Amino acid sequence: MSPRICIYGLEGIPEVKPGDDLPKLIIEAAEKNGVGIMDDDVIVVSQKIVSKAENRIIRLGEITPSDFAINLAEAEEKDPRLVEIILREAKRIVRVKDGHIITETRHGFVCANSGVDKSNIPGDDTVSLLPVDPDESARRIRERIREIKGVDIAVIVSDTFGRAWRIGQVNFAVGVAGMIPIVDYRGLNDPYGYTLKVTTIAIADELAAAAELVMGKISKIPVAIIRGFKPIRGEGSAKELVRSIEKDLFR
Amino acid sequence: MSPRICIYGLEGIPEVKPGDDLPKLIIEAAEKNGVGIMDDDVIVVSQKIVSKAENRIIRLGEITPSDFAINLAEAEEKDPRLVEIILREAKRIVRVKDGHIITETRHGFVCANSGVDKSNIPGDDTVSLLPVDPDESARRIRERIREIKGVDIAVIVSDTFGRAWRIGQVNFAVGVAGMIPIVDYRGLNDPYGYTLKVTTIAIADELAAAAELVMGKISKIPVAIIRGFKPIRGEGSAKELVRSIEKDLFR
Repeated sequence: MSPRICIYGLEGIPEVKPGDDLPKLIIEAAEKNGVGIMDDDVIVVSQKIVSKAENRIIRLGEITPSDFAINLAEAEEKDPRLVEIILREAKRIVRVKDGHIITETRHGFVCANSGVDKSNIPGDDTVSLLPVDPDESARRIRERIREIKGVDIAVIVSDTFGRAWRIGQVNFAVGVAGMIPIVDYRGLNDPYGYTLKVTTIAIADELAAAAELVMGKISKIPVAIIRGFKPIRGEGSAKELVRSIEKDLFR
Repeated sequence: MSPRICIYGLEGIPEVKPGDDLPKLIIEAAEKNGVGIMDDDVIVVSQKIVSKAENRIIRLGEITPSDFAINLAEAEEKDPRLVEIILREAKRIVRVKDGHIITETRHGFVCANSGVDKSNIPGDDTVSLLPVDPDESARRIRERIREIKGVDIAVIVSDTFGRAWRIGQVNFAVGVAGMIPIVDYRGLNDPYGYTLKVTTIAIADELAAAAELVMGKISKIPVAIIRGFKPIRGEGSAKELVRSIEKDLFR
């Protein structure tokens, strides 16, 4: 039979609060949606609800911006408290232009605003930060689902980033557990006998992008289950997807 | 019911030759695979077979490299005839480093080697080029499938490119027909009433990435059918996904 993959969006996950047992909420939603969770499923979880469960939510009112944050905020017409949070989450500033602040986060991700985001959070004055260690977040979700359901799955924590050279954002993997995030074809032969030299596919990013197709940004579907794709098992992490500055042609 | 998308990889597409009726081959494969083609399907077609059908295949033996191609090839340890083809397909060179030649193609795509590629083609001496106008290629496939089957679908022509900042390649949309490639959430409210300010999702790139999950690089599955995702209809094109140099923070 031809290869076939299905992606299910999970509706009905309640508002996630700090300390919530997120894996349990995911299992319950998967059952309510008539999908369940099976061995070899890849579960893609939006960063936003992971950050909520881990209390990576900050009120702008609690923040005192530094002088640099105030200067930068004025230049780029942003809230200085928001800029302060962006700087605290950053390892370095990659580019500032036309109101965009592109940073390298402490994890190594290059993205706008260090992944700090105002959308899909209750409260006018509130922003979410990326999880401290999204690979560890993915591992914990995976282990807890195994503990409750006895299934062996892979977990991806995803966030939506912009790209150089192309318009629009797509979902990327920021945390990975239970799978190898990159499929390496180097040294393998194509059907014509040509030995592939440079092809490595960022499969975890493609899974995250596929999940976004059912998630949307305003439809409250923060979890997708991808079934039928058999991930290559191993102790993978999203850190493998980060191009070091030495190997980056564009920094 | 929860949103549900399925992706079917089409096996059994024969070796594509110049002038072949590719849409007919896709329809026959969809039927042999028991999948068929339905209204609102998104059909993702690998650039490679589109280029074969359009005779965008070149023998290196036919090429006389320019002096610049010879110099560049020597510096980057590449075949000067290959470099000549890369230059002919390029509008400008974006970066040359460590044996990588990153160009902006005549279409505006920023990618390695102007999209010129040796894999998955018969013949040692042969490379494929991107279609001259991949949007037009997608439009022709869409129209012909409508003509034969009477179904209204969207078509994406995809290719695999690397990214700045991240390891590994993913599938991108290089041609689009019958759908809007970017979903614009700007001005819409999230479920908490926050008005989204910057969120535009490159949905055609996410569909291309999702298709790659069933395609692989060595498995001879050059077409995927994505069912259950209702694309927003319109006269879209992959050109909309190209960030102009004026709006690019990284050129």
